[in-house]
Amino acid sequence: MWHIYQFPLCPFSRKVRLLMAEKGIAYELQTARPWEGEDRFFAMNPAGRTPVVHETERAITLSDSRAICEYFEETVDRNPLISGTAQQRAEIRRLVAMFDENFYAAVTEPLLHERMKKRLVLRQSPDAKMLREAMKLAHDYLDYIDYLIDNRPWLAGATITLADFAAAAQISVADYLGGLDWSSHEQARAWYMWIKSRPSFRPLLSERMEVIQPPSHYAEVDA
Amino acid sequence: MWHIYQFPLCPFSRKVRLLMAEKGIAYELQTARPWEGEDRFFAMNPAGRTPVVHETERAITLSDSRAICEYFEETVDRNPLISGTAQQRAEIRRLVAMFDENFYAAVTEPLLHERMKKRLVLRQSPDAKMLREAMKLAHDYLDYIDYLIDNRPWLAGATITLADFAAAAQISVADYLGGLDWSSHEQARAWYMWIKSRPSFRPLLSERMEVIQPPSHYAEVDA
Repeated sequence: MWHIYQFPLCPFSRKVRLLMAEKGIAYELQTARPWEGEDRFFAMNPAGRTPVVHETERAITLSDSRAICEYFEETVDRNPLISGTAQQRAEIRRLVAMFDENFYAAVTEPLLHERMKKRLVLRQSPDAKMLREAMKLAHDYLDYIDYLIDNRPWLAGATITLADFAAAAQISVADYLGGLDWSSHEQARAWYMWIKSRPSFRPLLSERMEVIQPPSHYAEVDA
Repeated sequence: MWHIYQFPLCPFSRKVRLLMAEKGIAYELQTARPWEGEDRFFAMNPAGRTPVVHETERAITLSDSRAICEYFEETVDRNPLISGTAQQRAEIRRLVAMFDENFYAAVTEPLLHERMKKRLVLRQSPDAKMLREAMKLAHDYLDYIDYLIDNRPWLAGATITLADFAAAAQISVADYLGGLDWSSHEQARAWYMWIKSRPSFRPLLSERMEVIQPPSHYAEVDA
C-alpha cells in the first residue's frame, strides 16, 4: 500500500492523488507540514517538499511530484496520462510544467502564503495587494485555458492527460482560497466542471484545511 | 537542424545543450532574452522561459527544459541519460527537479538577478546581503553532492545521467557568477571536474555573457 505524505491544500499532492485515482492505485494519506521543518520529513525528501510517496513492503520512497507521476505512468498501464507520440508527450509535459511552476509561482504560492501560512503560522492578516495581484495573474491563465479549450477537447489535445490534472490541481487550491473569478471564462469553467465531476476529484473537494473555509461554489460540480 | 533559443547564462538551456551534445544531436544557437518581453519569443513559449528548441523542417517547437530532455531521450537512443528501472529513473528525475527548482530558486536565480539583471537591465549594484545568502545556500547543496558522491559514482547512481548534467548546468552558472566557494567540498569538486572535462561541456565554458566576466578558475578543467 502506498502512503502519500501531504497536506490538503498542496497542489502537487493533489496532482499525484488525481493520477493515482485515475489509474486505480490505492493509497493512504499521511499529513506532512513541511513548513514545520520536521527532521523525519526532510529525511524522506531533502528538498523538503510535499508530496512524498512511500511503500513500506518494498521500501520505496519517491519525491518530486513529476518524478512520482512518471513513475506510476511507467509502472501502471491502466489509463495512460502521458501518452501519444513523443511530440504529444512533450506538449503534455510543457503544460504540466507551466501549471506546476508558472501558475504556482504567480497564483497558488502567493495565495497559500497570504491565506494559509499567515493564518496558521505567522498569525498575520493577508495583504490585499498581494491577493489582487495573484487574482489578476490567475485571470491570464484562465484566458489561456479558454484559448486551449477553444482549439482542443482537453488542454493537451484529444484526450484527458496529466496536463488537465496538473492544471486542475493548482486551480482547485486557488479556488479554495478564493483566488479565482470565473466570470468571462466560459470555456475554462466548462473544462473545470468536467474535471470536477470525475470520481477521482470528489475526495479532494470534500476535504477542509483546518480553520480555512472555501467559498460556497468550491465543491459544487455544477457551479 | 535544431535551433535553441537561449542566453549564455541560462542554466536550463545549458542542461538541454549538454544532453543534446552527449546524444550527438546537432544544434544552432539563437539568442533569446525573455526579460525583454519580445512577442515573437512569447509566441513560441507562452511561459516566457528559455530554452525553446525549434526544428524548421518538421515545424516542431518544444519548451520546458525537462519536457525537451524527455523528448530527446525518447526519440534518440544514443547515450540514454534517463535510464534504468522505473525506480532509478524516479531518482534521476528527483535530482533533476531538485537542481532545476530548489537550487535555481535558492542560488542561481538570486545570483542572476544580482549580477546579471542588475548590471544589464536595471543598472544597479548587486546587494551584498543577497549574494552572501545565495552563497550560504549553495554551500548546503555542495554538501549534499559531497554526500551523494561519497555513496555513489555519479549523483543518481552507477552511471552518468541527466541528474549530473542538470546539477552541473546550475552549478556552472553559479560558478560563473562567483557564487561558489569550493573549499571543503572535495567530493563535489572532483565530481564537477569530471563533468567539466567532458567534450559536451567545453563550448559552455568558453562562452561569455557580454560585460560579465567569470572568476579565473571558471573555465579551468583542473582547478
